[in-house]
Amino acid sequence: MRIALAQVNSVVGDIPGNAAIIREWARRAAEAGAHLVAFPEMMLTGYPVEDLVFRESFVAASRDTLRQLAADLAADGLGELPTVVGYIDADGPARLGATVTIAGPPEDVPSPIDRGPRDALALLYGGRVVATYFKHHLPNYGVFDENRYFVPGDTLTVARIGGVDVALTVCEDIWQAGGPFAVARQAGVGLVVNINASPYELNKDDVRLSLVARRAREAGAAVAYVNMIGGQDELVFDGDSLIVDADGNLLTRGVQFTEQLLVHDLELPESTVDASRSGPADVFDDEVDSDSEGGAGIGKRQAAGVRDAMHIERVLVSRAMPASAGAQPEPGFGGGEHPPRSSAAPAADGGMADRVVDEAEVWQALVHGLRDYVRKNKFPSVVIAVSGGIDSAVVAAVACDALGPSNVVGVSMPSSYSSEHSKDDAADLAKRTGLSYRVQPIQPMVDAFLTNMAEAGSPLSGLAEENLQARVRGIVLMALSNQEGHLVLTTGNKSELAVGYSTLYGDSVGGFNPLKDVFKTMVWRLATWRNEEAVRRGEQPPIPENTIRKPPSAELRPGQLDTDSLPDYGTLDPILAGYIDGDLGREELILAGHDAALVDRVLRLVDLAEYKRRQSAPGTKISVKAFGRDRRLPITNRYREAAVPIATPAHDPVKSSTQT
Amino acid sequence: MRIALAQVNSVVGDIPGNAAIIREWARRAAEAGAHLVAFPEMMLTGYPVEDLVFRESFVAASRDTLRQLAADLAADGLGELPTVVGYIDADGPARLGATVTIAGPPEDVPSPIDRGPRDALALLYGGRVVATYFKHHLPNYGVFDENRYFVPGDTLTVARIGGVDVALTVCEDIWQAGGPFAVARQAGVGLVVNINASPYELNKDDVRLSLVARRAREAGAAVAYVNMIGGQDELVFDGDSLIVDADGNLLTRGVQFTEQLLVHDLELPESTVDASRSGPADVFDDEVDSDSEGGAGIGKRQAAGVRDAMHIERVLVSRAMPASAGAQPEPGFGGGEHPPRSSAAPAADGGMADRVVDEAEVWQALVHGLRDYVRKNKFPSVVIAVSGGIDSAVVAAVACDALGPSNVVGVSMPSSYSSEHSKDDAADLAKRTGLSYRVQPIQPMVDAFLTNMAEAGSPLSGLAEENLQARVRGIVLMALSNQEGHLVLTTGNKSELAVGYSTLYGDSVGGFNPLKDVFKTMVWRLATWRNEEAVRRGEQPPIPENTIRKPPSAELRPGQLDTDSLPDYGTLDPILAGYIDGDLGREELILAGHDAALVDRVLRLVDLAEYKRRQSAPGTKISVKAFGRDRRLPITNRYREAAVPIATPAHDPVKSSTQT
Repeated sequence: MRIALAQVNSVVGDIPGNAAIIREWARRAAEAGAHLVAFPEMMLTGYPVEDLVFRESFVAASRDTLRQLAADLAADGLGELPTVVGYIDADGPARLGATVTIAGPPEDVPSPIDRGPRDALALLYGGRVVATYFKHHLPNYGVFDENRYFVPGDTLTVARIGGVDVALTVCEDIWQAGGPFAVARQAGVGLVVNINASPYELNKDDVRLSLVARRAREAGAAVAYVNMIGGQDELVFDGDSLIVDADGNLLTRGVQFTEQLLVHDLELPESTVDASRSGPADVFDDEVDSDSEGGAGIGKRQAAGVRDAMHIERVLVSRAMPASAGAQPEPGFGGGEHPPRSSAAPAADGGMADRVVDEAEVWQALVHGLRDYVRKNKFPSVVIAVSGGIDSAVVAAVACDALGPSNVVGVSMPSSYSSEHSKDDAADLAKRTGLSYRVQPIQPMVDAFLTNMAEAGSPLSGLAEENLQARVRGIVLMALSNQEGHLVLTTGNKSELAVGYSTLYGDSVGGFNPLKDVFKTMVWRLATWRNEEAVRRGEQPPIPENTIRKPPSAELRPGQLDTDSLPDYGTLDPILAGYIDGDLGREELILAGHDAALVDRVLRLVDLAEYKRRQSAPGTKISVKAFGRDRRLPITNRYREAAVPIATPAHDPVKSSTQT
Repeated sequence: MRIALAQVNSVVGDIPGNAAIIREWARRAAEAGAHLVAFPEMMLTGYPVEDLVFRESFVAASRDTLRQLAADLAADGLGELPTVVGYIDADGPARLGATVTIAGPPEDVPSPIDRGPRDALALLYGGRVVATYFKHHLPNYGVFDENRYFVPGDTLTVARIGGVDVALTVCEDIWQAGGPFAVARQAGVGLVVNINASPYELNKDDVRLSLVARRAREAGAAVAYVNMIGGQDELVFDGDSLIVDADGNLLTRGVQFTEQLLVHDLELPESTVDASRSGPADVFDDEVDSDSEGGAGIGKRQAAGVRDAMHIERVLVSRAMPASAGAQPEPGFGGGEHPPRSSAAPAADGGMADRVVDEAEVWQALVHGLRDYVRKNKFPSVVIAVSGGIDSAVVAAVACDALGPSNVVGVSMPSSYSSEHSKDDAADLAKRTGLSYRVQPIQPMVDAFLTNMAEAGSPLSGLAEENLQARVRGIVLMALSNQEGHLVLTTGNKSELAVGYSTLYGDSVGGFNPLKDVFKTMVWRLATWRNEEAVRRGEQPPIPENTIRKPPSAELRPGQLDTDSLPDYGTLDPILAGYIDGDLGREELILAGHDAALVDRVLRLVDLAEYKRRQSAPGTKISVKAFGRDRRLPITNRYREAAVPIATPAHDPVKSSTQT
């Protein structure tokens, strides 16, 4: 059986556009001689659609377009190619999230609690929707809120395609043992298709293969795993689609972050089960895997809600292997059986994509996350404040890789505290990358505030004066955005966001932040890797060596260095990773070898900066826990990780401790 | 039996401070002769604590402090007063949310899926924790993410207190039929205590009483409902504690938004059940109520995960009615039975608080939401840009009511487009309210940007120039905040946030926004009500009449009016309420009588402004659906509610359509 996995890039909410992508790639699959093509989870609607699920009109658009798509595929001559598509369905009210008016006391009535919106999969064949499956395991941790939106399915759909029984599953279903894959073993299937919208995290691909292999062994069947690619706000999807055999051996693997049709031939057993035999399975999924989408241990409690036994629903699609390569459907064909045909195409091998180093993987994640935010929101270009420092240099290099240097504007905005090397390094960056460069001195505007506010009785000094410089730069960027249409990129890295080392409405100004989830030490690693990569390619390294080597400084007062206020980043970042990504407490961090006084200081900085992060720009998630929906903390929060309660103010006034 | 409900104000994360509040109010309850005192849900930790749950150290602090509290209460001489307290417990790992490192492929292992963090209730007596209960129904809609944090309990705890069987439940448990209250009927209890952290929404109090009454009839028992008061970031809790008898008749009701000990005598039946008889209940909670915390229809799917039968756990606290009024515990007393005593206090009647009009209720919500954000975060004062318009005037009046006029700074920041009446109205507002007033002209700073950016080759015009004025004002406010320590309040109302009628980093600058969830038409109603209320009290009305009467304008160009860009607010707000609060689609809005072209225009404005709302300040939720965690939508989203797909850009560059 020739399987095609369409590792493509959908756009949230662009239902007609996504349907067009499906038609195009189904055509390619047919041309490649595929007997089955699978698209990612929620391919038709994009993922995640969040509260759009609550709008009946949106769910209706998903369902209606799916039916039209089935007909369109048949009209395209692709009716005989079984096509697996993720979409949103509902067998109950979508609008569980709100009411406009509360008309008197409601009565107690029994409700159809097992019906509502569904994270759904459809099998399209012969111009019709011949089978559907509703996702069983709904992730509700990390960035995921699927219990908010969906009702879990309790039936495993098994489709007989070319005599082979194929179980159809969605994403999280593969992250837990004892669920649909155990039921698939009972059903005796030869293949499990698992369609995904699984966001990128550094190292997740290492877990993915072993996970899919375990599930294959659990099901006693080959597994075809397809994942989407592309950016969606704070998430980026890396593809990494793959197929393993029933023993868990890897057969083929797609390229990360690349649109690709992964086509591979599989030897699959013909089913001997009576295809009309649907019924209950006797597996209870009360055992769960020790890992999950978000890392080891997550998702355990998720399973607590779905202890019920599952049912098996069998659908006969075709007794013999379907024909392919754009064959026309039989006249009057109704989606059931049809005469056997054999594929004439030569043997297909999807190949094995090379694994890449962490820096390369992260760089691609940042490039794709930024590119799709810009393109999907139809911005013509971006503008970046280039300071001569490492953060803005890396963002500029990412932007040039994502959009081309002609769509990147860099603005140097020197004040009276800016060093000569900063101006030189910024100009050097522009020359190396080819971005559009301009210089906008800010001292006259800074002076206008200082003079006029002093005259009106409000003289500024110290931190207020330092922040003023950053805010004048923010105004300049926004004025250029308003005047010329660029998206403003902000460049604060994860270490800075963590400790609040930024000026709210100053250097934090921007619609998107490529470094939001990148610790400072990784920013340096990325810069070094990207320069080395340029050398490997025989190109000019984009980032000035001096920018990488010099000690970081915000340059808001004479001779200022980051290390005046913060520990060395090599010391800081592991504490931050433990506290933020790992939810470790003070004692655990000290046990891990960190200095107690430093831990206290760092944790306090992180706690006090929550109000700034709440108003920060979105940026691409690359870690196990990114700031944003992945980490939800109150602003008003007096809990401090300390041996003794702290009596000092719970958070500072709206201002920065200092800034970059 | 004399019940005391402590309607108090806890602080998130201030576990020692909250424990001190419990000791103080337990003392008052004892002095009032109470036989039982109940505190709100998560009283000890504050609510909601969000991802703090994932930190083992936090959960340990909650549990350890609870045990210490039980001992401290006994040491205070309050050991004989049964005290019900909400807190966080865990009988499994708290840290389900993250891992620091992924150490090789994890193995499939059976996991204790029914253990983990718990939204818990404890009964303290005799210096010990004598009983606990774990919340059964976990809300996961609206602002609630409790499936993310907690494992649901499956055991109803029944405590025999003074011979009366009392069932102990938490918050959402009361919003669904067929759950713990049905089990309480089987257990034959005389009273159900329900402790809450139920956020304020306009009209929720109307639903609350009928809901509690229905549950009382379902349980065949009196119900004592206690809710917290006070603000926590975007939420404000209104109290409204109440007690109904077994027939659902209201016996007493607390005052909204007021710290209060509601003390009331109840006639309750002595139990005839064997107090040692614990065991399974035969009720399955697969029937759910048609309403819930968030309004009718929500929470249905919530119940899908908890179809298991519950168990009943009985605890003998005291055979006879406990003594009260600060009586000392017996030496060596261990939490079990003790000699009967009778209370000598006169009959207690908690009384019946008056219901108030909507405007009064909302005004109090805004006052308490702002006051607690300021106080709990220890800001000394606030600063507001007073423009002479209605929004800033209402915010200033709310701030003066919340903090006193001496802690409110109003800054008038006229530009060359500011009208004389604006300056006069701002000054009049200052005079009427007594706030600290100053004038800071902005034209010199605006001109500095215009001149210097033109000189550097980037001349500004049109929208860029309009936004510049708003952003210079934002800088001035932040400079004053940094220099003098004020919290900046921003004043954009819900109508403006909805359609994006604001300047990002301009008038949107601020740490808190009292009007974030208040539609413009309600802003006017509030102003009128507050002025009339002043007249009723014989005080000066705070808001200038001219501010209420004049047509709204952003005054960023000559003669500008809001109605140049937007429909009349009386027309706009119902469309917004339907689309945002009600999740209605285009066709439903047109069916409801709205003009089709206007609906298309408004919906498009709302969709395109999502990126601005993502960076907006927090503000008090007063409606069924507030911007913020209550409404989660992607920024990148091409779905448009329209008859035909729209091919134009999905969202504008980072800028405002126009601004206020």
